[in-house]
Amino acid sequence: MNGAQALIRTLVDCGVDTCFMNPGTSEMHFVAALDAVPEMRSVLALFEGVATGAADGYGRMAGRPAATLLHLGPGLGNGLANLHNARRARTPIVNIVGDHATHHKQYDAQLESDIETVARNVSTFIRWSTKADEVGTDAADAVSAASGPPGQVATLVLPADVSWSEGGLPGRLPAPARPEPPADAAIAEIAAALQSGEPACVFVGGRAGRAELLAQASAIAAATGAKLLGETFPARLERGAGRAPLDRLAYLAEFAAMQLDGLRHIVLIDAKAPVSFFAYPGKASDLVPEGCRVHVLAPPDGDLATALAMLAERVGASTAPVQQPAAPGLPTGALTADAVCAALGALMPEGAIVSDEANTSGLTAPGRTTGSAPHDWLCLTGGAIGQGLPVAIGAAVACPDRKVIALESDGSALYTMQSWWTMARENLDVTTILFNNRSYALLNMELGRVGAEAGGPRAKDMLDLARPDMDFTAIAKGLGLHATRATTADGFVDQLRRALATPGPTVIEAMVPSIL
Amino acid sequence: MNGAQALIRTLVDCGVDTCFMNPGTSEMHFVAALDAVPEMRSVLALFEGVATGAADGYGRMAGRPAATLLHLGPGLGNGLANLHNARRARTPIVNIVGDHATHHKQYDAQLESDIETVARNVSTFIRWSTKADEVGTDAADAVSAASGPPGQVATLVLPADVSWSEGGLPGRLPAPARPEPPADAAIAEIAAALQSGEPACVFVGGRAGRAELLAQASAIAAATGAKLLGETFPARLERGAGRAPLDRLAYLAEFAAMQLDGLRHIVLIDAKAPVSFFAYPGKASDLVPEGCRVHVLAPPDGDLATALAMLAERVGASTAPVQQPAAPGLPTGALTADAVCAALGALMPEGAIVSDEANTSGLTAPGRTTGSAPHDWLCLTGGAIGQGLPVAIGAAVACPDRKVIALESDGSALYTMQSWWTMARENLDVTTILFNNRSYALLNMELGRVGAEAGGPRAKDMLDLARPDMDFTAIAKGLGLHATRATTADGFVDQLRRALATPGPTVIEAMVPSIL
Repeated sequence: MNGAQALIRTLVDCGVDTCFMNPGTSEMHFVAALDAVPEMRSVLALFEGVATGAADGYGRMAGRPAATLLHLGPGLGNGLANLHNARRARTPIVNIVGDHATHHKQYDAQLESDIETVARNVSTFIRWSTKADEVGTDAADAVSAASGPPGQVATLVLPADVSWSEGGLPGRLPAPARPEPPADAAIAEIAAALQSGEPACVFVGGRAGRAELLAQASAIAAATGAKLLGETFPARLERGAGRAPLDRLAYLAEFAAMQLDGLRHIVLIDAKAPVSFFAYPGKASDLVPEGCRVHVLAPPDGDLATALAMLAERVGASTAPVQQPAAPGLPTGALTADAVCAALGALMPEGAIVSDEANTSGLTAPGRTTGSAPHDWLCLTGGAIGQGLPVAIGAAVACPDRKVIALESDGSALYTMQSWWTMARENLDVTTILFNNRSYALLNMELGRVGAEAGGPRAKDMLDLARPDMDFTAIAKGLGLHATRATTADGFVDQLRRALATPGPTVIEAMVPSIL
Repeated sequence: MNGAQALIRTLVDCGVDTCFMNPGTSEMHFVAALDAVPEMRSVLALFEGVATGAADGYGRMAGRPAATLLHLGPGLGNGLANLHNARRARTPIVNIVGDHATHHKQYDAQLESDIETVARNVSTFIRWSTKADEVGTDAADAVSAASGPPGQVATLVLPADVSWSEGGLPGRLPAPARPEPPADAAIAEIAAALQSGEPACVFVGGRAGRAELLAQASAIAAATGAKLLGETFPARLERGAGRAPLDRLAYLAEFAAMQLDGLRHIVLIDAKAPVSFFAYPGKASDLVPEGCRVHVLAPPDGDLATALAMLAERVGASTAPVQQPAAPGLPTGALTADAVCAALGALMPEGAIVSDEANTSGLTAPGRTTGSAPHDWLCLTGGAIGQGLPVAIGAAVACPDRKVIALESDGSALYTMQSWWTMARENLDVTTILFNNRSYALLNMELGRVGAEAGGPRAKDMLDLARPDMDFTAIAKGLGLHATRATTADGFVDQLRRALATPGPTVIEAMVPSIL
């Protein structure tokens, strides 16, 4: 057994049986070893950002890591933006970066570069495997580190000679660390804050986006009269009819400040304290109101479920509010971004998974789907656009029996549109709704917000995607997909209905005016 | 004048008047400042790898840096692969990475990440600008560092508040350092080696790819009976009729070893000592034959022109061999990769600039164009694919009066196909010849080279681009370009003739069998 075979065997034995890859020459022994370990599913991506984003989507839905396989430092660079998003989502990923053979590095060949310094941007666990008989143990340690809690991107650097050398030994998963049990006193202090009669907010994120924990957090808020809010861009939110409804913190700091105004206590349930996404001249970055205390229910590596249960018991929380089924009417007439969102709210099937990178055009999508059949909602956690389509791939691979809907915008789609080819190749059940408003609409808004000198013609030209116009239907067809274009609400409804009724990948290009 | 205005003013004053950008919110003040300094040309890219690769192509052809503008750590990650190629090409680039406002960083907002650790992969000069009244000086220092020699990627991190704060002051370019004059004794030693009668090779790269220096190196080889060889993937090679012909070192180590066999002296003219691109089990990485001495004519920061002139005088070199005009006959019949290369050799106009990322399909392109009208040839210097189309953009912006021809392969094109939109938007005179062989052909070869266990069906499936087939004509049209598909040699000749006769961007998709 060579090192590559031992590595793949170890991954499979540790529950990592899916690898999203974009390999090169230094990874050929890993590729060759795929035939020796048929339990490993390998999914080819044509760009590394697709592979890393797919691993993110997979990890969010499967609750366990997928592996990536990237080609040296430049391949890691290409995959970095979506690893950044995964880091922010706390998604477990075993990030395998192939490298030159150990004896080859000294010659500084063309593709040699400092891999570790790039990996440090997204990984605290970075292991350089150096021997075939140790690569199994290294891989098992990487799976353990990735799995958390908290989930994280664990990077394993794999030199070519470690792959090709004989003497590989499969490794075993170390026993998971037991998180510290929550301290009674800390829980009591949080309960006292919530029951103090002062304005308080239960602010949920991370693992608390899952239905069961969310219901508990919601019940705690209801029992104590606290406001319930969710983080702006959750990694995974279980929502819809029958689940606890959740308002999210606004993206724009002005609106977020209104939501948080007057609070004296914010209780963080696996969320970070609210801060402005960007800084603006003369505006606050920290959104926690002055005089408001921030309480942390459980640290990222803590036992969140136990802590929540203890808090619920202490405040006498019993049942959470439940969202009643409700669906918007089907839109007709002119096609607008909101008409698309309304159609989605009306037609979305039970168990759908929405990968939301629609940015400005998708503004009303969460509201329009509040009472739709129960579904999952996956957001752009790290702000690095180009995540939506790859995350949809990973979700579809993790959940082959569920319909995946990618809400995508023109500007963002362009970063990782190679995703469409992988969707076609794997025949994934993904419907992409592409909002084509021919603009970096968000940036046009931000340009307006930066001050008086903005908005000259040369500046505006840098945010304009209409010169030339892009035809995403043609691009998607060129990448092997079925694709249609909708220019009216009625046409869109027809196309969406058909797409949702037909398994397999489809793109619907919705021609909409910018909402800004 | 705010910091952003001072920065752009400084760049223009220092000779940097082109910026390839993919900005986000933290860069909006830079974008807003474009109207205040109209001498700066800004070119929008829809993906950061396009911007950085374009800056590489620009720097190679203009001989001075362009600037980039990237969006925080993830944007730098997306641009990293082509900055890696630029580092290997020693291209001067002022790499500007926008960042959160200095006071905002402590809040660890969604897009916060360690920019510097990523930049270290490609930059030894990394300057964090912290004040509006210093950003001009910082920028001038970055231009100086980028310009070299050696040219390099100088990274300037630009926090949003430094851009928006008043009190910006333009900076001035520091006086360039004078390189050490070459030592007579060192030149004498190299001359003695070349005149020793032992087998010797003059190995040229880097700056010695330019016609004048190449002719001198060629004359030195001719005068001493040394073999003349060029590095495998030159950043810029001036070649064709009337220039000194140059054979390049083979990509495959087996063939390279034959070219170098028996040498006792290798004289490096701005090149690195030859090493194998990748390592293979049981094969040597270092291609310098045993017992062969390596001599360095001038260090990367040295005065190469003076050193070459001194060496030429000492060995009595006078005239270099000159390539005679010659053109292959026009191909007819079935379309093959070599037919495409022959058509190119026959039709390429004087002054063309070829951005060559055709990989396997372009194998015969250098040979077929040896005697074509004089032209420039730009290669994939760092091995990170996705360089060819962006480099073509930069070359066309730098040299608007010359025809640019991008030789591109299917697998590589997919990394940065967003380039086509920028070509259309800027109406750049670039003809892309896309070899569509529906395979990662190079990797199929490499899989065969890794050993006996390779080549199972699951492994081979990871190198297959034909499931589903891609239609690059449709993709290019979707991105706003004129595009046609050629399936016969005669059809290709017609389409190429028309493309070369018509200014503006075009894509010709050449359907060819893999040569392997």
